[in-house]
Amino acid sequence: MTAETICVGTELLLGNIVNTNAVYLAKEYAKYGISSYSQTVVGDNAERIKTAVKDALGRADVVVVSGGLGPTQDDITKECVASIFDLPLKLDSASMTKIEAFFKKRGKAMSENNKRQAMIPEGAKILENGNGLAPGVIIELDKDLKPSDKDVSKCVILLPGPPEELRNVWENGAAPYLKARSGNVIESVMVKICGRAESEVAAILDDLIDSKGPVTVAPYAGTAEVHLRVTAGGEDEKAARKLIKPVVKEIKARLGDSVYTTGDKSLEAAVVELLLANSLTVTTVESCTGGLLAGRIINVPGVSEIYKAGYITYSNKAKRKLAGVSRKSLDKYGAVSSQVASEMAKGATTLYKADVAVAVSGNAGPEPSEGKPVGLVYIAVNVAGKVSVKEFNFSGDRAKIRDLSVSNALIMMRQCILEYYGRMTFGSADEK
Amino acid sequence: MTAETICVGTELLLGNIVNTNAVYLAKEYAKYGISSYSQTVVGDNAERIKTAVKDALGRADVVVVSGGLGPTQDDITKECVASIFDLPLKLDSASMTKIEAFFKKRGKAMSENNKRQAMIPEGAKILENGNGLAPGVIIELDKDLKPSDKDVSKCVILLPGPPEELRNVWENGAAPYLKARSGNVIESVMVKICGRAESEVAAILDDLIDSKGPVTVAPYAGTAEVHLRVTAGGEDEKAARKLIKPVVKEIKARLGDSVYTTGDKSLEAAVVELLLANSLTVTTVESCTGGLLAGRIINVPGVSEIYKAGYITYSNKAKRKLAGVSRKSLDKYGAVSSQVASEMAKGATTLYKADVAVAVSGNAGPEPSEGKPVGLVYIAVNVAGKVSVKEFNFSGDRAKIRDLSVSNALIMMRQCILEYYGRMTFGSADEK
Repeated sequence: MTAETICVGTELLLGNIVNTNAVYLAKEYAKYGISSYSQTVVGDNAERIKTAVKDALGRADVVVVSGGLGPTQDDITKECVASIFDLPLKLDSASMTKIEAFFKKRGKAMSENNKRQAMIPEGAKILENGNGLAPGVIIELDKDLKPSDKDVSKCVILLPGPPEELRNVWENGAAPYLKARSGNVIESVMVKICGRAESEVAAILDDLIDSKGPVTVAPYAGTAEVHLRVTAGGEDEKAARKLIKPVVKEIKARLGDSVYTTGDKSLEAAVVELLLANSLTVTTVESCTGGLLAGRIINVPGVSEIYKAGYITYSNKAKRKLAGVSRKSLDKYGAVSSQVASEMAKGATTLYKADVAVAVSGNAGPEPSEGKPVGLVYIAVNVAGKVSVKEFNFSGDRAKIRDLSVSNALIMMRQCILEYYGRMTFGSADEK
Repeated sequence: MTAETICVGTELLLGNIVNTNAVYLAKEYAKYGISSYSQTVVGDNAERIKTAVKDALGRADVVVVSGGLGPTQDDITKECVASIFDLPLKLDSASMTKIEAFFKKRGKAMSENNKRQAMIPEGAKILENGNGLAPGVIIELDKDLKPSDKDVSKCVILLPGPPEELRNVWENGAAPYLKARSGNVIESVMVKICGRAESEVAAILDDLIDSKGPVTVAPYAGTAEVHLRVTAGGEDEKAARKLIKPVVKEIKARLGDSVYTTGDKSLEAAVVELLLANSLTVTTVESCTGGLLAGRIINVPGVSEIYKAGYITYSNKAKRKLAGVSRKSLDKYGAVSSQVASEMAKGATTLYKADVAVAVSGNAGPEPSEGKPVGLVYIAVNVAGKVSVKEFNFSGDRAKIRDLSVSNALIMMRQCILEYYGRMTFGSADEK
């Protein structure tokens, strides 16, 4: 099965917003084993929308069109696509009832325009929208591209543009529909790896990545991370999972502790889980990252059990007063040094009692500082009094260097805790 | 002039990376008054690249193709586009010298593949790449779409895919070329507004936004911000600027202090500039944002003069010990309350002497906490002892609520400083 995405919206052509819907759908296609060879963005223009849909139907089995289902005059996707197939738009009473209830609840007057969201091309399947008023639509086509629910050969799927609505309609309506139609069940597992370069992972797993067998292994590079999507098809979920399992096992065997999850969790969630499993509290002392490390840790729900307090010690005086760094070390080695990073990690645990302390001190640029080049960063981790410190030389602009520092601090935390407390043995719901 | 963007890369079709190049180019087109009606993404496949380029040339004056200029076998954009026009590839000695020097400096062996980056379609213009080895390329075409540098009607511009390389080649090569070719100079000014909803800004400026006159005003919505691009054409830069000036003046007159820049700076940079101009030091005390506010302030270069230290007081105990919040207030009102946020902002200035202190306490979710709903956030700003506190009810997931909290904290800081110290009168290089 092949799919093409067409995103409708002048705001995309103006660079007003980033096309996150295209990325989301691309990942979803990969997850379900659907191939995609093209994506298109067009403005809110009837002729261009129709041409784009017709062209895409010439190439792909499934054409997914996002955006333009709203109530304003700019929203013309449904009318355009219906007109390609000469389908009249009919009022769907269930959608209308929902729209009326929405306005009634808010005590607002419903405009005539809102009615347009309940107009559905005749004979189309309606996909409920759990996050908004515009339902999704599937128009099924036979091999001559005529609307028909018999011998369905291709289809056009219309999804609302707001990302949370698109995801809701895709997950609950479009994806199950395509899964059912493909006959073959596609399953996939995401294996997430940290602390290894993409080229290193590719070299270690080259036979699995290049394999022409039933299981595909596709690498994705992230900031200081590599993600592998392991995908297989089968007659049912069990059969597909049976194919995937030994490949995931082999990847874990080759990469060891570098694999931090075979589920969907983030690196910071994996680190927080490790801290929770070992009942370890944590604190952060940040200079160049200035709160971003704490910010990422605190994005994990339930972190309050292990994260209590943290410090941003941007000035040398703050490093001395808040983290107990010695004036001598600051004078002798400078703030960007392994000595000062270590003292920050040591001092933090005594100031605010925590089992684990992480310290970051570096020069994120844009200019060299105290003779230290841009990109030089020291990260120190103190686990129960044992301090590890590492030097990094990052490339990129200020934001990139700070981002890499945060990711590497999380990776070091994980490594140090694993070394000290041994591999975790707790069972996690998302481990596969 | 009309332009279309074609992004080449299988990684985009797999959802591996977000298409930031398309957004960047879309914004650049708008800046130069170039209209764009379509964007396409295709994989590293010769037939599909050629079809996409030919189709786009049927519609647009300028076709910009990004990606696929690298040294690997996957990188085939140059070969594909050259073959459309039957142009042989010739070695460009200047590009080759640069590639050889690069490998010599690093003491690495140059592979045969790297030579491919110096191969240029015959007769094409070469655009130097200041951030990498693959130069950009312009192929000029006459009205019959034959390569020719006489009576140029259309053109294909090839840009490298890595964003920092694409931007470098665009800015220094492609943009000046298009500017020169268009004859008409297009100038634009970005007016950035904070603390007002997009609908409110649109209502106040409706006549300017809907105007069919020579100056266009295009609104872009960001997190708690609205940006307006004010664009005009003229026979030279001076003539265009003369048209823009009164419109920008009118926008400022209508929106007053809500306009934080008519240049390119970020909200956090505007806040830091205001602090620097008034010689005010600042500290942050964060609960639900947990370091993200400090992180954003510290992303501004040169911030070390005014930001010395900050606190993350995630637990109630930390709020008491680090920010001097009373146990009584925590018990009576809960951590998510205007009383506790105010006390955090008061306490912070005494603990670590600073002229301005900002405190954030809220529930970012995913669950209600101590009877406080998800999205309820209190932000307090202490300017020289005068504390202002505001209640917010944000929607969205945990990350979105934290992001909105940070933006609104910056907006409140700016408002409170302006109220206390009066409107700044310092001249900024980027104010227009």
